[in-house]
Amino acid sequence: MHSFEKSEYEARVKRVQSRMATSGIDVLITCNLANMNYLTGYDGWSFYTPQLVAVSIEHDEPVCIVRGIDRPGGFVTTHLSEENMLGYPDDYVQATDKHPMDWIGYQLVERGMGGGNVAVDMDAYYYSARAHASLTAAMPNATFMESGNLVNWVRIVKSDKEIAYMRQAARLVELAMQAGIDAINPGTRQCDAVAEIYNAQIRGTAEFGGEYTSIVPMLPTGAGTTTPHLTWSSEPFNYGEATILELAGCRMRYHCPMSRTVHLGPAPERMQEVSNIAVEALNITIDKIRPGITCEDVHAIWNSVVSRHGIIKDSRMGYSIGLSYPPDWGEHTLSIRPGDTTELAPGMTIHVMPGIWLDNWGIEISEAVLVTETGAEKLCNFSQELVIKN
Amino acid sequence: MHSFEKSEYEARVKRVQSRMATSGIDVLITCNLANMNYLTGYDGWSFYTPQLVAVSIEHDEPVCIVRGIDRPGGFVTTHLSEENMLGYPDDYVQATDKHPMDWIGYQLVERGMGGGNVAVDMDAYYYSARAHASLTAAMPNATFMESGNLVNWVRIVKSDKEIAYMRQAARLVELAMQAGIDAINPGTRQCDAVAEIYNAQIRGTAEFGGEYTSIVPMLPTGAGTTTPHLTWSSEPFNYGEATILELAGCRMRYHCPMSRTVHLGPAPERMQEVSNIAVEALNITIDKIRPGITCEDVHAIWNSVVSRHGIIKDSRMGYSIGLSYPPDWGEHTLSIRPGDTTELAPGMTIHVMPGIWLDNWGIEISEAVLVTETGAEKLCNFSQELVIKN
Repeated sequence: MHSFEKSEYEARVKRVQSRMATSGIDVLITCNLANMNYLTGYDGWSFYTPQLVAVSIEHDEPVCIVRGIDRPGGFVTTHLSEENMLGYPDDYVQATDKHPMDWIGYQLVERGMGGGNVAVDMDAYYYSARAHASLTAAMPNATFMESGNLVNWVRIVKSDKEIAYMRQAARLVELAMQAGIDAINPGTRQCDAVAEIYNAQIRGTAEFGGEYTSIVPMLPTGAGTTTPHLTWSSEPFNYGEATILELAGCRMRYHCPMSRTVHLGPAPERMQEVSNIAVEALNITIDKIRPGITCEDVHAIWNSVVSRHGIIKDSRMGYSIGLSYPPDWGEHTLSIRPGDTTELAPGMTIHVMPGIWLDNWGIEISEAVLVTETGAEKLCNFSQELVIKN
Repeated sequence: MHSFEKSEYEARVKRVQSRMATSGIDVLITCNLANMNYLTGYDGWSFYTPQLVAVSIEHDEPVCIVRGIDRPGGFVTTHLSEENMLGYPDDYVQATDKHPMDWIGYQLVERGMGGGNVAVDMDAYYYSARAHASLTAAMPNATFMESGNLVNWVRIVKSDKEIAYMRQAARLVELAMQAGIDAINPGTRQCDAVAEIYNAQIRGTAEFGGEYTSIVPMLPTGAGTTTPHLTWSSEPFNYGEATILELAGCRMRYHCPMSRTVHLGPAPERMQEVSNIAVEALNITIDKIRPGITCEDVHAIWNSVVSRHGIIKDSRMGYSIGLSYPPDWGEHTLSIRPGDTTELAPGMTIHVMPGIWLDNWGIEISEAVLVTETGAEKLCNFSQELVIKN
């Protein structure tokens, strides 16, 4: 059940400890699920109760603490020794008079992690304000500080095995996208198309199936293409309307996303034009990606192409991807937007996602790319054209 | 696209304001997605960025604040007037030098909600420690306090229309459970069975389809039945092993969960015995549920049956259900466990879920019930027996 060899986790922890040392951090605490998995392998749908991984500058192995009934899942998915895979008693779950972080904080203090500079992923999804209040109260001798997403930034360059999982995820999203395109027809209910997408995404190939993606299938349709995060309904698709498909495949929690746009019936001339511009700009941009270029320069290349055609878009048009959990498959590190001076490096994986929204409709055509030693490689092999179904 | 009439939302807000008045709360702030939906109708997969609903004791209408690109989704799903459906600028998204709660807090102050007693759902999933730090800094004249899940407790008694959605969700989980039972066979891959479950759960009936459930399909199998929250793999089911199916249906975000246990080949005698005990205890317990009985008394009834057979279980065996979002379909109010003295009342909906885990295997057979004027009614109609597939 292990996604990686023990040695890969050990190397990751060492890289994190090295950054901790540089920043004067004694203990790093994360509730970010992808960071927890990255450092220990811990996996499971147990994040509806508090859980965390703590890395000490002084110990080789991190400690992972989850709800007691989920400790056996930790023995299956991690290489941690028993004393570093802990579970809290069940009477802490959703109690009004105490909080799991009371117990967790006590355990960290007992293990010598209660003092010095303690950095926390303060904005991690499942690290609530209450969790922070309880944890800091349980560790009164620690000096708490913001981690600056330290582990996310270590995760940004992928190993060969991580890239292999992302290539498998690319196969899954290709299957899901084709299933979605095939299923969208006038009169077909949105829910029935989504059922086909899930079927392809999870059944996968004869060699491997897919897992749950961090975002459910998105398919804004008609006027809904300007409301990007409404999920599907039981209403039918209509002739004469466009649908944006924003999907992903997931393999061992590694994601490969892809967006395409479908139109039922002949597309309005302007929509076809904008789609052609979007594809041209996307490919010119990907061709220019190489190690050393900054995120804002990548954005500027794209912008120079579309602005020639009178399209203005200053917002984010891409982000780092990889290991992730609901509710987001973005890595929360680099963004392809003005002001981000992060330099791209080999092994980074990026969703280049330049959506164009006009007054009452939008176009999304995207590619997930791997930065190589010399340029960028698309992870998927799938036609980029606006799909016209007559 | 509205789940309910405007008047139903207005009545909900009034009930919340009445409790606020009793508790001396001037402003109530919630990032709990189900609470946000309950108070305004707001829906969308936009919770990977900060968002909230605020209720003032002085204003009839709440204010809902989301990411700017999701504001149009608010116009579709809520009845709120334009000035109470706000979106923050995109440069606040995942920025390092500012946080969406800076902008949100400023807006609340501008709307006269910056002073007095401000109660917050401190343990809501997407209310991060960083969000709290930024919001409190932006509202320096407010006295922040813990809400005690005030809105969750208002949600606990369902209206007729809410119950109608839950009955539809019950149809969806019946379909999903049958699809799962049919698909689990020796040699079938877990991912292929999950694909069938999703297909049934989302395709639904000719009248309505299903939505994404707050927890993905769970089907711990073999030795995995003691690791309840590991998700599926691409491995096959094996002859001679049990699988626990814990599924739900979701309609307009209202959930109906159900658990059943399947064994491939003749079950070990002890497993069949324990299964029979579990079913007997479940039904005796449901027969005794009526308005006025406390949660701990419900637990004691179940316990008195199973303890006669030598089974001890002191942990939680049920919880309130209804409107919900990932990562949990529990309502985080009443728990069927020792020490919970909440009295049941008509209109409450409870997942009676007494899992029994022995040394290296477990049994789950559950029912979602509605508390009526005179007793309790099962929402699903589905055989409870241990499913033996020979």
